[in-house]
Amino acid sequence: MSAPTPRTRLRRFPDKAAYDAATIHAVLDASPLGHIAYAMEGAPMLLSTLVWREGDRVFWHGSSASRALRAMEGAEVCLSVTTLDGLVLARSAFEHSVQFRSVMVMGRAEKVTEGKEAHLQAMVDRLFPGRWQQLRPMQSQEVKATAVFSLPLSEASAKIAMGGPTDEEADRSWPVWAGVVPMALTFGAAKPEPDLPEGLPAPEVAWVAR
Amino acid sequence: MSAPTPRTRLRRFPDKAAYDAATIHAVLDASPLGHIAYAMEGAPMLLSTLVWREGDRVFWHGSSASRALRAMEGAEVCLSVTTLDGLVLARSAFEHSVQFRSVMVMGRAEKVTEGKEAHLQAMVDRLFPGRWQQLRPMQSQEVKATAVFSLPLSEASAKIAMGGPTDEEADRSWPVWAGVVPMALTFGAAKPEPDLPEGLPAPEVAWVAR
Repeated sequence: MSAPTPRTRLRRFPDKAAYDAATIHAVLDASPLGHIAYAMEGAPMLLSTLVWREGDRVFWHGSSASRALRAMEGAEVCLSVTTLDGLVLARSAFEHSVQFRSVMVMGRAEKVTEGKEAHLQAMVDRLFPGRWQQLRPMQSQEVKATAVFSLPLSEASAKIAMGGPTDEEADRSWPVWAGVVPMALTFGAAKPEPDLPEGLPAPEVAWVAR
Repeated sequence: MSAPTPRTRLRRFPDKAAYDAATIHAVLDASPLGHIAYAMEGAPMLLSTLVWREGDRVFWHGSSASRALRAMEGAEVCLSVTTLDGLVLARSAFEHSVQFRSVMVMGRAEKVTEGKEAHLQAMVDRLFPGRWQQLRPMQSQEVKATAVFSLPLSEASAKIAMGGPTDEEADRSWPVWAGVVPMALTFGAAKPEPDLPEGLPAPEVAWVAR
């Protein structure tokens, strides 16, 4: 992965940046929620959407009629997946920070023209392995109404900050609690539809916020 | 609140949009993580950062030397706070969706020039009430090194989708599990620094992902 310039910054000091594929993939895979910056008539816009990775590309989807997606087609975008892992409490306000893992990908958004359904299957099966083949099969007008986009990971970078507070030596005896309050995106118990026939097993979530 | 055009969309169908201050405030207050789209030399860029609300403005901060913040000053930006509340599993792939609450704010980023410290206090005390006055007092060079930005909520909109699957009648008997897998950002047990003196109470987190 080459280093894009400039990169996003989540806190005020440079954090450990990584450009290796394994790290970038792991951070992308840690959360299904992505944000995509794009331009609409010259103005910066933001799309929050589910994203998923297949190999060395990141994908997202939406309505074929979506103004946001139409504005993105072939255009430069900046996609980010950020997981907040904790709040870091120091003795001084200045050294407070957060634990996070973030990936930023820049490039031109490419609209998928062939094999859309296989990518939608990848999205569903990534969250719930094997679910796609249990579903009512997708209809051609549904495929038509759905747009799938992707971005190569050739200009991607990861930033990871998982350390504790870094107070200056002189501050370390200041009488205030210091440490980390961990945070995680967690799943609750699955809530079945009221009219669901008995005996259908609840799906197992493959995805875990690591 | 007036309706900005266009608005972000998290799923393919229009969801319930809201422009009243109470809803917008509640969604902004539900997560400390924001994303801000801005332009850097004409290219769309994204900043992931902590955000907090004071009255009818949303704030963020960073290093005074940050290239991202310098690029934003007085420029159009688009800020979003999105909370993922669940995965919605339908009988057809097409009706799968997510439960979410999202706010999008558009406007020109304003750099705070007076009273930066009071805003930083608001950020800390919002997360941990009363903590600011327990901290080693902020030094003038720390205030100088910190930039604070804000955006009015005059062009803000909220979108909330908390429903279950909306399968077509003909699909509701398809033999696959359907319902909602809830998600939430949760806090773990606070981890004190190894050299922390005994007897200092761990801070209580005021903020809860509601």
